[in-house]
Parts: sequence; C-alpha cells; structure tokens
Amino acid sequence: MSTVKMVEYNEASDEVRAVYDEIMQAKGIDFIPNFWKTVATHPPMLKQLWSEIQLVMADGALDPLIKEMIAIAVSASNGCDYCINSHTAAAIKKGMTPEMHGELMAVVGFFNKTNKLSDGYQVEPDVKPNID
Amino acid sequence: MSTVKMVEYNEASDEVRAVYDEIMQAKGIDFIPNFWKTVATHPPMLKQLWSEIQLVMADGALDPLIKEMIAIAVSASNGCDYCINSHTAAAIKKGMTPEMHGELMAVVGFFNKTNKLSDGYQVEPDVKPNID
Amino acid sequence: MSTVKMVEYNEASDEVRAVYDEIMQAKGIDFIPNFWKTVATHPPMLKQLWSEIQLVMADGALDPLIKEMIAIAVSASNGCDYCINSHTAAAIKKGMTPEMHGELMAVVGFFNKTNKLSDGYQVEPDVKPNID
Amino acid sequence: MSTVKMVEYNEASDEVRAVYDEIMQAKGIDFIPNFWKTVATHPPMLKQLWSEIQLVMADGALDPLIKEMIAIAVSASNGCDYCINSHTAAAIKKGMTPEMHGELMAVVGFFNKTNKLSDGYQVEPDVKPNID
Amino acid sequence: MSTVKMVEYNEASDEVRAVYDEIMQAKGIDFIPNFWKTVATHPPMLKQLWSEIQLVMADGALDPLIKEMIAIAVSASNGCDYCINSHTAAAIKKGMTPEMHGELMAVVGFFNKTNKLSDGYQVEPDVKPNID
Amino acid sequence: MSTVKMVEYNEASDEVRAVYDEIMQAKGIDFIPNFWKTVATHPPMLKQLWSEIQLVMADGALDPLIKEMIAIAVSASNGCDYCINSHTAAAIKKGMTPEMHGELMAVVGFFNKTNKLSDGYQVEPDVKPNID
Repeated sequence: MSTVKMVEYNEASDEVRAVYDEIMQAKGIDFIPNFWKTVATHPPMLKQLWSEIQLVMADGALDPLIKEMIAIAVSASNGCDYCINSHTAAAIKKGMTPEMHGELMAVVGFFNKTNKLSDGYQVEPDVKPNID
Repeated sequence: MSTVKMVEYNEASDEVRAVYDEIMQAKGIDFIPNFWKTVATHPPMLKQLWSEIQLVMADGALDPLIKEMIAIAVSASNGCDYCINSHTAAAIKKGMTPEMHGELMAVVGFFNKTNKLSDGYQVEPDVKPNID
Repeated sequence: MSTVKMVEYNEASDEVRAVYDEIMQAKGIDFIPNFWKTVATHPPMLKQLWSEIQLVMADGALDPLIKEMIAIAVSASNGCDYCINSHTAAAIKKGMTPEMHGELMAVVGFFNKTNKLSDGYQVEPDVKPNID
Repeated sequence: MSTVKMVEYNEASDEVRAVYDEIMQAKGIDFIPNFWKTVATHPPMLKQLWSEIQLVMADGALDPLIKEMIAIAVSASNGCDYCINSHTAAAIKKGMTPEMHGELMAVVGFFNKTNKLSDGYQVEPDVKPNID
Repeated sequence: MSTVKMVEYNEASDEVRAVYDEIMQAKGIDFIPNFWKTVATHPPMLKQLWSEIQLVMADGALDPLIKEMIAIAVSASNGCDYCINSHTAAAIKKGMTPEMHGELMAVVGFFNKTNKLSDGYQVEPDVKPNID
Repeated sequence: MSTVKMVEYNEASDEVRAVYDEIMQAKGIDFIPNFWKTVATHPPMLKQLWSEIQLVMADGALDPLIKEMIAIAVSASNGCDYCINSHTAAAIKKGMTPEMHGELMAVVGFFNKTNKLSDGYQVEPDVKPNID
C-alpha cells in the first residue's frame, strides 16, 4: 500500500485534475492508475513526469512498442513490481507477442549475468564505440 | 585490470581455442575481446556463455539491433562499464543512429526514475497484464 | 513472511530481551518491530545492529530528521519494501511534512535518472572535490 | 571516456548553446561539465534535464545543501562514479563540512546494510506510515 | 502473480514435459515450482536454464551447500523475493544450520555496506590479486 | 581517486593510529589499505567498521575462506571495483583455487540472471523455508 494518501479524482485540485484528464484521454482509459494518483501528492512532480513521459515515449527514431519493451528491460533489471506489471500490460496492448516477450526476457536475463561477470572479474573495456 | 590472468589465443587449450575461432568468425574480428579471454579461465563457463549468446541474440521475433539496444538498457541500469562500451559499439555497428541512441537513453533514464518513485512510494500494482 | 522464525519477546534469551527492552524504551513503543525480531535469530547481529544504529542516527552534524530522509533515499534507490515503510513512518514522526516528502522523492527520482545516464554514456568525471 | 562525441560549446547549435549559457551562469562556472556536453548529443534530453534539475534542486521545503547530500546518498547507493564526484564537490561548495560528510556516509552505509538484511530475510513490513 | 500464464504440467508440450520430468526427478519433488512453470512459456529459455543450473550447481571444487548459500547472498543483494525464499529453503534442505544462516547474513549485510562506502568515497583499488 | 583526503599513518590521531596498528597486525601487512585510510576521515566509522569486520569474518559456523567468497559474490553483484579486487586478493591468499574462483563466478552469474527473470516475470514465491 502506498506510503502516501493517493489523490482521488474527485478530491483533486483543478491543476491536478487537468493532468488526470489528459492522462485518461491519452491512454484511452477511464480511471487514474495508482502511480499517477501517488505522484499527484506533489503536483510539480506530477506535471513534470507527465510532460516527460509524453516526450520520451513519443513515436520517433524508435517506435513506442520498442520503447515499452525497453521499459520492461529496465524495470526487470531493477526489480520494480509496479513497473514490470504496468509496462508488460502496456507492451502487450501495443502488440508484444508471447515470442517477443520470451526473447526479451532471455536477453534481459543473459545480460544481467554477463554484466555481473564483467564487473566481477574487473574486465577492462577494449571494445568501444569509435566516437571520432 | 582483470582479476584473473586472461587466456591468450596462443596459450589456449584446444577446447578454448575452438571457441575462440568460432567467436572471431561469427563476429568477423581478428582478436578475442577481453571478456571472452577472461571467462576462458573457466572453460565450462566460456562454452556455456558462447552457446547461450548465440541462442539469445539470434534473429527471431526481435531483430538483433533491438536486442543489442536492450543490452545497452540493461547495462546502463546496472552501470557495467565493459558492457556499456561493448554493446554501444555493437549497436552502432548494427545500425543504431545517434537519434536512436538518444531516444534509447532518454527512455532508460526516465524509467530508472519512475522505477525508484514507484518503489519509493510503495505504489501498489493495479495495471497488470490480463493473463487468462 | 520472514524466512526465519522471529524471536518473540517472551521466548527470547536474557541477552536478546535486554536489547529488546532498550529498543522499546529508545523508540517509545511497546512492541518489537519485525526487523529486530528477525535479526535476533542471530544474537551477535542484533547487538551489533542496535549498537550501530544508535551511533549513526544520533544527533550530530546532521539532525535525526535529515538522517531519516537519507534512509528513505537509500531505501527507495534499493527498492526495500520494509525499509521504505519504516523510514517513511519514522520521518513523519520526526516532522517530515508532505512538502518535504514530495521534494525528497523528486530529488531521489531525478538523481536515479542522471546516475544511469552518466553510467550509460560512460561520462568521465571532471567535476571533483578539491581534496588538497 | 564517453561513448558519444561530446558537444563542445563552439560546435553547438544555437539551441544547445542557449542551455549551455544558462548552465554556466546558474552555476557560476566558465566551462560546461562533461555530463551536460554528453547529454547535449540528444538536445531534447539536454533541455528536459536542465529544466528538471532547476525544479528539483530549487530552495523549497528542503534546502539545496540537503538536496545535494541526498544526491550523494543516491549516487553512492548506485555506485555512479561521475555523480559521486560531482555531487560531493557541489555539496562541499554549498557548505558540507567533513563532519557532515562522515555522518552522511555512515548513514548511507548502515541503511544499505539493513536494506539487504530486510530483503534477505524477507521481513514483512509492520511499521508503516498512517496515511488516513 | 506472474505476468504470463504459467505452463501447467498437463497442458505442456512434450518438449516442456520432458524437462519438467527431469526437474521433478532431480529435485525429488512431485510438483513444478512456479519459476519453471513461468520460464516454460519460452521453451528455449526453459531448456537453457535447466541445462545451465545442472552445470553450475554440480558438486565440484565448491560443494552444493556453499553454492546455495552464494545464491542466497546474490539474491539478498538484489532483493529478489522469489529467489531468497527458494534458495533459503534449498540451503536448509542441504544442511544450512541457523548459525550458518546467521553468519551468512551478517557477512552479506556487512559487505553491502562496505561496497557502498568504497564506491561512495571513490576509493581507488590498491589491494589486488597478483595475476602474473 | 578518493573524494576525501585519506588519513596517512604519520598524520593520524592516536585514536586512528591505534586502529591502524591493529589492522596491520591482524592482516600481517605493513601498510594501510586505501579503504581504511579513507573511512578514517570519520573516526567513529573507522572504529565501528574495524570492530564489525572482526566479528563477521571470524571463523565460526562458516570458515573465513567461504566468507571471503561470499564477499566476492556480493561485490560482483553490486559492481564494486575496490571490493572485487580486495576480496579476490584476500580469497586467493586464504586458499581459493582457480577452479573455486571459476565455479563461484559461474554461480554468481547464473543467479544474477535468474533473480532478474523471477522479478521480471513477477513469479510468486511457492518454495519457502518451513519456519515452524
């Protein structure tokens, strides 16, 4: 259970409610997810996060499904329960098939292993991007 | 510097050298990266890792460039110096443009933030995949 | 549920009970929190931890509320459910207002993001403390 | 060394240079730190980060020195080399004494330990904020 | 609850069921643990993991109980709920006494603390293995 | 390079020098490792850490070599450069063979992978220690 009292729609200030309306419209849902009702306890953070998520998740050089799968990779590496659930749900909605999900997790698992082996043996970087 | 004495090609056993030859051929390179020369100090691990990386990185439901970018996402979240360097180099080789790199990092940064906010407020999962 | 059978007050050895009494008195509570009942399964650890927490949380160059908020920052970065709950409760008891809580979390979230960006781009340290 | 070619001031676009000028003015410095020259490779991220850091680090319910020490706590918990250096330097500039630094690190160390003990024994949360 | 629909024994393909049979026989149990029923949603991963766990957990230079305790140390450091539970159960089955468990956790806690202090102060490595 | 000016033996207070003498005697070395010279900038932490390390690393239900290998497992999982170097050196001094080192790392790598898969799929714990 959240460590703060979440801000429900009908108790929200006009400022918060305006963001809530945008969230529901953008996501095509008729409720406010717990994450947003929680960060709304600090309105400047609610507004900042909502503005940033629209920027970073927009269709661009990477499409939104790829971005959602990267969110799963990050959340799995960090072990964030809320985020793993919500990003897996979102990725499926955007078209992630079971095969894609399986391959994603195999990649996430493998590189979490090699990350710790590289660190654990203090392997010195030798393969680097050529940045000149 | 590695915490073990890396296994150089000309000092390697036949078993290790056979894997080294496969690595150079598969990657189209003429040297053995430090990571592989390090894990070769424990030959069963060298063989296991080389077998697994071919499995998980193969072209499938996700293409190899996407998998390489997921490797960057994982490695950045874990702060693995060797891995960030080598996967960034590999992703560029496979076609990652500066725009794709920038968007990838913006997504990685954002979700590392929201992961910690979700955990830090103990937000209860409410948006979940429908698995039935 | 704990992976060990917690040590209840009325089943505790004299040695453990003496620490329990100090904990209840110091915290002004009439029960032993689960954390302490769990580490009491290894009495040398119980005594070590109780001694150390009094040392590190004492009023000093930093006041106890600041220290409690640093505990929240650490616990959120690590995603420790027990710790986030208990330190948030303790910080509120010591005077953390909702505004302070919101600003704390905004800072924690932001630097978790920039930490991963700095690592993820392998940015070389250039701004360092002058230690001479 | 950074995995991207950093954007130097005299090679920067007008858009990037405008942010660089603000950074130097706000920080009272006459160079652009590596972190900012690195994220400038993706201008929307540069602008987003600069806007957000001003928001979260502003004097408010918590003062800037406390916020800088929280940044150290987060960066130490994540092991981010760049960030630990830059935030330690910034905190000293804002008035962190050696005594404050020592106490901060003692708190950071202690709670990283208890976080792992709480998780490692799967201690069930019982001390929680009263959010009603 | 798992983010995928777990593969139950009586719904499993022949390929998956063959691994399930080996797991039950090797572990001397008559059910399939949730971890294996989950990764079975991606059969190549199920087979890869089952093959690897037999390799890495085999009696060798380190005995299986020590390996199980190392698994607890890793899982506690990562805060993985499933893994802490299952490896603690397995270690007890293999002979871990309460004293061994207590000492293990004290070591895990201590080095999680010193890890963060070493990083948090950016201590330069001076004690290194002599690898020549 | 450390973010604080390390305390050299000949500049140390009597209180710090007394601990330094104990460290050198206990470890059979004639210099003070950087870690200890760094934490000595906050003498209460130096004394606390030196007291605790003697407690947790003492020969007991687990022998010192096993404890040193657990320290490597923790440090590799956290990616702590200083700690990986110093604990690998210490474990070799205490008798860790290359075979033991290889098996240790294979176990550490594997469980870092399965930790992230368990979290990443939100697998519900079903195999738990029987604590009654």
